[in-house]
Amino acid sequence: MQTIFELQQIIETAITKVDYPQHPAKLYEPIRYIMRFGGKRIRPVLLLLSSELFNKDITIALEAALAIETFHNFTLVHDDIMDNAPLRRGKETVHVKWGVNNAILSGDVMMVEANKHLTNLDSAVLKDALQCFNTTAQGVCEGQQLDMEFEDRDDVSIAEYINMIRLKTAVLVGGSMRLGAIVGGASTEDSGLLYQFGENFGIAFQLQDDILDVYGDPAKFGKQVGGDIISNKQTFLLLKLKEVATAQDIALLDTERNNMDHTAKIDQVTRLYNKYKIRELAAVQMDQYLETAFSALDNISVSGPGKTEIENLAKSLINREH
Amino acid sequence: MQTIFELQQIIETAITKVDYPQHPAKLYEPIRYIMRFGGKRIRPVLLLLSSELFNKDITIALEAALAIETFHNFTLVHDDIMDNAPLRRGKETVHVKWGVNNAILSGDVMMVEANKHLTNLDSAVLKDALQCFNTTAQGVCEGQQLDMEFEDRDDVSIAEYINMIRLKTAVLVGGSMRLGAIVGGASTEDSGLLYQFGENFGIAFQLQDDILDVYGDPAKFGKQVGGDIISNKQTFLLLKLKEVATAQDIALLDTERNNMDHTAKIDQVTRLYNKYKIRELAAVQMDQYLETAFSALDNISVSGPGKTEIENLAKSLINREH
Repeated sequence: MQTIFELQQIIETAITKVDYPQHPAKLYEPIRYIMRFGGKRIRPVLLLLSSELFNKDITIALEAALAIETFHNFTLVHDDIMDNAPLRRGKETVHVKWGVNNAILSGDVMMVEANKHLTNLDSAVLKDALQCFNTTAQGVCEGQQLDMEFEDRDDVSIAEYINMIRLKTAVLVGGSMRLGAIVGGASTEDSGLLYQFGENFGIAFQLQDDILDVYGDPAKFGKQVGGDIISNKQTFLLLKLKEVATAQDIALLDTERNNMDHTAKIDQVTRLYNKYKIRELAAVQMDQYLETAFSALDNISVSGPGKTEIENLAKSLINREH
Repeated sequence: MQTIFELQQIIETAITKVDYPQHPAKLYEPIRYIMRFGGKRIRPVLLLLSSELFNKDITIALEAALAIETFHNFTLVHDDIMDNAPLRRGKETVHVKWGVNNAILSGDVMMVEANKHLTNLDSAVLKDALQCFNTTAQGVCEGQQLDMEFEDRDDVSIAEYINMIRLKTAVLVGGSMRLGAIVGGASTEDSGLLYQFGENFGIAFQLQDDILDVYGDPAKFGKQVGGDIISNKQTFLLLKLKEVATAQDIALLDTERNNMDHTAKIDQVTRLYNKYKIRELAAVQMDQYLETAFSALDNISVSGPGKTEIENLAKSLINREH
C-alpha cells in the first residue's frame, strides 16, 4: 500500500505525462500551467484511496483521478475569472496571464480533457463513472452560482450557506471518492457510503477553513488571517453571529466596520465572535459533520488498512492548523 | 421515413422535454432561453439522418442529437462572450441578459448537460460515442481559438483559414454525423465516410457563407450583406484577393477603406472582388469540397432513400440563397 506522499507522486507523474496537443499553443499552455501548479492533490488522492479499498491495483483508477483533478482545475480557471482573482497560490491566474477569452476557452477544453480521461476507463464501469462525474460537476457549478448570488444578499441563512459549501466544495470530495469506489468495483452501497464520508468531511473541512480564517496560526495558515472579515465574506461564523447576537451588536457590525482600518475591523469582529462563542459553535457543527463522515466510513463493508489511511488523511487535514 | 420538417419537430419536442433543474434559477434559465431559440437544428437533424441509415429506429439517437445541440448552443453562449456580441438571432445574448459570469457558468453546465445526454446512450456504443464527441468538442474549441488569434494577424494563409473554419464549423457537422452513425451501429468505415461528408460539406457551407456575405440577396440572407467587409473580417474572399491582387490594389484595400463610409467601403471591396473574379474562385473551391463530400456519401455501404435525403438536405442548404 502506498503512502499519501507516494500517491501524490503518482498523480504528479501522471499529470506530467498527459499529452496535450502543442497547437494552438495559447489554448493548451494555460492548461499545462495550471495543472502543474502542484498542491496537495487531495481529491485524486482520496479517489485512489477509495478505489484501493476494493481493488489493490490503483492504476485502474488513474484516469479517473486525472479527470477529477482536471475538472477541479477547470473550475479554478473559470471561478478566478468570475471572482476577478489576480493570484492563485501566489502565481498569476490564467485570465490575468492570457486574458479572459483565452481563460474561458482553455477552461472549456479542460472540461473536454476531463471527459477524455473518463472515457479511457474500463467499459464495464464507464456508465456509472460518467453518471457520478456529471452529477458531481453539475453540483459544483450550482455551488459556484449560489456563492455568486450570496454576495448580493444579506439574508442568507445558515442552512443555505451549508448547502452552498456542500455543493461548491464537498460534492467534489464526495464525488471523487464515489468515483474511485465505482472504478474499484464497489457495491452501490459502499460507493454511497464513501460519498457520504466525502461530502460530510468536505463540509467540515470548509467550516474549519472559516474558523482558521479568524483563529488560524498566521505562520501555518496559507491565507491572510482575517481575510474573510476584511472582504465582508459570508462565512459560517458571520452568519452564526448574525443569528445569535443582539440587535445592538449586529448594528455595530453593520454600520461601523467599513469605516475602520483592516486591523481594527478584524479586532472588532473577532471581539464579537468571542463574546458569542462563535468559534465554539462552529466547532460543534464541524464535529457533527466529522462524526457523520467517520460513521459512514466505518460502515463500509471492507476492512483493513485502507480505511485507516483515509481516516488518518482526513484527520491530518482537519488538524492541519491547530 | 420522416421528412426534415418532422425530424426538426422531433428535436424541438425533445428539447422542450429536457428537465433542467429549477434551482438555482439564474443558472438554468439561460439554458432554457438559448436552447429554445429555435433555428434549423441542422446538426441534430443530420445526426438523426445518419443514424437512420443504419437503424430505422431514430429514437435510439435522440440523446446523441440532444448532446450535440446542447454542445453547439454552449459554444454559442461562450463565443458570444468572447466576441462581445450583443445579439443572436435578433435576441439579446445570454451574457448581455444575465451578465458575463452567469453566461460562463451556465455555459459550463450546458457542457455537463451535453455529457449527461450522451451518458444515456446504450452501453454498447457509449465509449465510441464519447470518443467521437470529445474529439469533436476539442476541435471546435481549437477552431474558436484560431479564429480569435487570426483577428490580430494580417498574414493568415488560405490553408490556415480553411483549417480554422474546418475546426470551428465543419468538425461539428462531421462529428454529428459520425456520432449518429456510431449510435446507429455503422461500421468504422461508414461512420468515417459520414464524417468526411459532414466535414467537407461544412467547409463548403462556410465558404458559401463568405460568398453570400458579399453577393447574397439581402431579402434572403439572414445577416447584413457586406457585414464581413465592414468589420474587416478575414474571409476566404479577402484572403484570396490578397493572394492574387496587385500590390497597388492591395494597398488600396489596406489604406483607404477605413476612411470610407460603410456603403463606399462595401462598393470598393466588392469592385476589387469582381475585378479578380474572387467569387468564381471561391465557388470553385466550394465545389471541390462539395464534390469530396458527395463522393464520400456515395461510398457508404448502404443504399436507399436515406442517402438521398441527406444529399437533398445538403443541396437545399447550399442552394439556400442563390
